[in-house]
Amino acid sequence: MSIVVVGSVFFDTVETPFGKVEDVMGGAATYFSVAASFFTSVKMVATAGEDFPPNEIEFLQSRGVDLSGLKLQPGRTGRWAGRYHEDMNVRDTLDLQLNVFADFQPVLPTGYRDSRYVFLANIDPQLQQSVLDQLSAPGLVGCDTMNHWITSSRPEVERLLGRVDILTINDEEARLLSGERNIVKAARRILEMGPKSVLIKRGEYGVIRFAPDSVFAVPAFPLEEVFDPTGAGDTFAGGFMGEIARSGDTSETGLRRAIVYGSVLASFCVEDFSLARLRTLTTDEIEHRYRQFVSLTDVDGV
Amino acid sequence: MSIVVVGSVFFDTVETPFGKVEDVMGGAATYFSVAASFFTSVKMVATAGEDFPPNEIEFLQSRGVDLSGLKLQPGRTGRWAGRYHEDMNVRDTLDLQLNVFADFQPVLPTGYRDSRYVFLANIDPQLQQSVLDQLSAPGLVGCDTMNHWITSSRPEVERLLGRVDILTINDEEARLLSGERNIVKAARRILEMGPKSVLIKRGEYGVIRFAPDSVFAVPAFPLEEVFDPTGAGDTFAGGFMGEIARSGDTSETGLRRAIVYGSVLASFCVEDFSLARLRTLTTDEIEHRYRQFVSLTDVDGV
Repeated sequence: MSIVVVGSVFFDTVETPFGKVEDVMGGAATYFSVAASFFTSVKMVATAGEDFPPNEIEFLQSRGVDLSGLKLQPGRTGRWAGRYHEDMNVRDTLDLQLNVFADFQPVLPTGYRDSRYVFLANIDPQLQQSVLDQLSAPGLVGCDTMNHWITSSRPEVERLLGRVDILTINDEEARLLSGERNIVKAARRILEMGPKSVLIKRGEYGVIRFAPDSVFAVPAFPLEEVFDPTGAGDTFAGGFMGEIARSGDTSETGLRRAIVYGSVLASFCVEDFSLARLRTLTTDEIEHRYRQFVSLTDVDGV
Repeated sequence: MSIVVVGSVFFDTVETPFGKVEDVMGGAATYFSVAASFFTSVKMVATAGEDFPPNEIEFLQSRGVDLSGLKLQPGRTGRWAGRYHEDMNVRDTLDLQLNVFADFQPVLPTGYRDSRYVFLANIDPQLQQSVLDQLSAPGLVGCDTMNHWITSSRPEVERLLGRVDILTINDEEARLLSGERNIVKAARRILEMGPKSVLIKRGEYGVIRFAPDSVFAVPAFPLEEVFDPTGAGDTFAGGFMGEIARSGDTSETGLRRAIVYGSVLASFCVEDFSLARLRTLTTDEIEHRYRQFVSLTDVDGV
């Protein structure tokens, strides 16, 4: 079944110890959509400016991404520039221009409104809720958020959490949201706020999922070269939610497999700058790495 | 089969965000021995001072630890004092008094010399090699080291690595030893120095094992309370090597199971100060958590 994603479309300028790219397509909705498109069809809700290039429209459509919810507005697409440190877990934002994204008001085309699967990427929690209000019968709602909203709009974040099934969040954000330093306690506190699952993203250390009666942890796929971590979290979410929308399997086993698929997609994402690796990725490569991933973590060996 | 361990016996004063203990038994050989004693009999090679209390001798012997290689010398047992930060991955050493440990020259009793399994805990790499010289036919040699020796005695560390099967090391030490920032590349470089396996300890993020043709990664067991990380790495090594000595199984599956047992033992270690939790631990508790650990990481759910 298809999946709706709402989030940002940006142009990024990124510097890592391995090089630099300028004004390349990025944004949470973009990474999510491309990753999820390997599993299911995606309906994107986002905004970009008049400068958004036709070849990127074509690329997204070639991946089966429905862009009827992408509103192209007068003005420029948002811009973000960042520089990663030698330790790529740390980055500095050098520039942020919201441009048309500053006035983003997500409106779902009629054809999106009966979608069962939805992912609310990191945007203002009020806008995330407005998307839920437009859906007739959301079956499985995933969402992301960030420090900025937890600090500036906590009541709205908490209201949102009462309406979502799965929260993806990094460890620092989980600590801020819960007020607990220990990650197990942090997850328990967040589960009390509403979500049935909390997925804590730990970058190069993988992902840990907490549900009221189960815990599942996977490492990140070990890579010899990490070129650019930008978008890895949204790519993870895209692979994860995309696989669930494809299989319809929300059992413990189904969710665990989806977490591995998300981790696999994220591991490809960081192998090259921006979306470059995902543009050439094949389902055979995904399945091959999925099997490697299972063997990486299987206590009984393979 | 029994296992020989050589390493330090100290008294520790430890402060964590949860409290403080003073002058409690610690040291790598001690943590290793107690952990390994749940799997096999242990022969300890170490030194302590006249102040070493008879009740601790009795405790170690009650755990099946052979102390004929523990030399009690005139003078005081070594002392270490440290304080952990709010983020318990970071600690400061407040005081270090080597005392009798400064003149430690490991001498293996005759009854130790035909041991097949040996673990060289973190001491001067020349002393680690002198232990190997005293063994008639070591079958499986594990070792640990630290930044201090890598920096001050690199040629000796490299010579040692040519004689060991398994190196346990933390990620920072692996980077220093290899000169590689990426942990996969670091492990590949270290494998070229001799060991057949490199186990990189990542604290709260678990352990990753590299061999020439396989990689295995496990998370740490998620705990709501981590009281005191002191000795967790040596406890991991004790559970890991102890299980191998017990089973004699050095197949890929055998080593993976041993890594899980090591992780289980380490998870108990950090639940209380010093050795407190290991003193009351039972094999039933170990087996129960082993099963929980497998379920934590099993992609197919349990």
